[in-house]
Amino acid sequence: MVTDAQQACFEAGIKFGSLYHQFAGTPVSPRSTRSLETAIAESIENQPFCESVTVAIDDDAVAADIAHDNGYTELSGHLMQVQMRIVYEGVTVRTRMEMEDGYPLMKLVEVIDDGTADA
Amino acid sequence: MVTDAQQACFEAGIKFGSLYHQFAGTPVSPRSTRSLETAIAESIENQPFCESVTVAIDDDAVAADIAHDNGYTELSGHLMQVQMRIVYEGVTVRTRMEMEDGYPLMKLVEVIDDGTADA
Amino acid sequence: MVTDAQQACFEAGIKFGSLYHQFAGTPVSPRSTRSLETAIAESIENQPFCESVTVAIDDDAVAADIAHDNGYTELSGHLMQVQMRIVYEGVTVRTRMEMEDGYPLMKLVEVIDDGTADA
Amino acid sequence: MVTDAQQACFEAGIKFGSLYHQFAGTPVSPRSTRSLETAIAESIENQPFCESVTVAIDDDAVAADIAHDNGYTELSGHLMQVQMRIVYEGVTVRTRMEMEDGYPLMKLVEVIDDGTADA
Repeated sequence: MVTDAQQACFEAGIKFGSLYHQFAGTPVSPRSTRSLETAIAESIENQPFCESVTVAIDDDAVAADIAHDNGYTELSGHLMQVQMRIVYEGVTVRTRMEMEDGYPLMKLVEVIDDGTADA
Repeated sequence: MVTDAQQACFEAGIKFGSLYHQFAGTPVSPRSTRSLETAIAESIENQPFCESVTVAIDDDAVAADIAHDNGYTELSGHLMQVQMRIVYEGVTVRTRMEMEDGYPLMKLVEVIDDGTADA
Repeated sequence: MVTDAQQACFEAGIKFGSLYHQFAGTPVSPRSTRSLETAIAESIENQPFCESVTVAIDDDAVAADIAHDNGYTELSGHLMQVQMRIVYEGVTVRTRMEMEDGYPLMKLVEVIDDGTADA
Repeated sequence: MVTDAQQACFEAGIKFGSLYHQFAGTPVSPRSTRSLETAIAESIENQPFCESVTVAIDDDAVAADIAHDNGYTELSGHLMQVQMRIVYEGVTVRTRMEMEDGYPLMKLVEVIDDGTADA
């Protein structure tokens, strides 16, 4: 037995894992942060039940991460903040990725049932 | 408010999205299916709350997918079956990826609460 | 002994392999092709010696590839054309990815030495 | 006009970019280094003209990279050494990835023409 809220949370997790492992490692510099943010968000919004994705890549963190002369670094969790809203059968799930103890943690922020979901 | 079962389902989804988007696109042939299965499983089992991952890449499907002379194809959902067990705070979640209508669907199979989880 | 022209060709190959394996598998639909094209090009242009990258994702091919109800597909070689120009120590290398016998082939189009490169 | 040696170097670059951007970001711990090394090598050896790939992931570096409690890190260039041999139309290309000034550099080590290649 799986409830609609549990299914909604599963769907939310899929989107987060997809986003991270599709785009981590992408070459990025302060010149290319905006286009990468947009592409990540629009790409993941294609997935089912994914209502909205917001990606903010931190230009200063990217610049600080460029340790070598080549002028770019690779996208990873400590360089971006992500928020997503998933809606599945009347259940809205909000998620966020943010740094915690130096580790980019994917968090389930809230699960809101509009009253029509199967328990 | 998020229940342990919902958090467990979120974690299960993260693992599935991670597995798929990390490894989809990997060059594969019938000569390299076994090592890829093992590496995928052991890699994702590193993630938190992930008790076991089983990956079965279909050698016949891989061979059939090799349309050109180069002798390999790229890993994608229709070439493999995946099963995972996630355990979070007394909640066990079983998931599976299998083909449905020609599309590799990630499924939440069951959510089992051992009675100690927070509702 | 490695010539500048050989090094330039090696660099060109790195960019092509990077582009393909970073972005293949990205969820894409006709709604998100333009942002993905831009992000891919700007991302790879960050890499050393990479003067320009042009990516054209074929909207009609993407639409035709959407076989299931979910409304998106995964980026792969048959959905896009890519052109790159690499410049290394006076050697310009032009490359292109295009379909050949149903397989997306990465091609070295021309290698132009401006006369200053080490032979 | 493209020589066989230039084409061989282009092919060598493709393999390196593919390897790096396919597998960077993979969850890894000292428990899963051996299976990942094997899978990476066997996967890339599927690609055309790729005679051999050797991947050595540094267990100590992986352990040192595990900064947080989760017990794993993500594969990136500073954790591994890679050597490849590409053979194209009588030209053998040897490549290596190793750290230089804190940055994982992909290097063209040597290009050996057996005397039958087109100049």
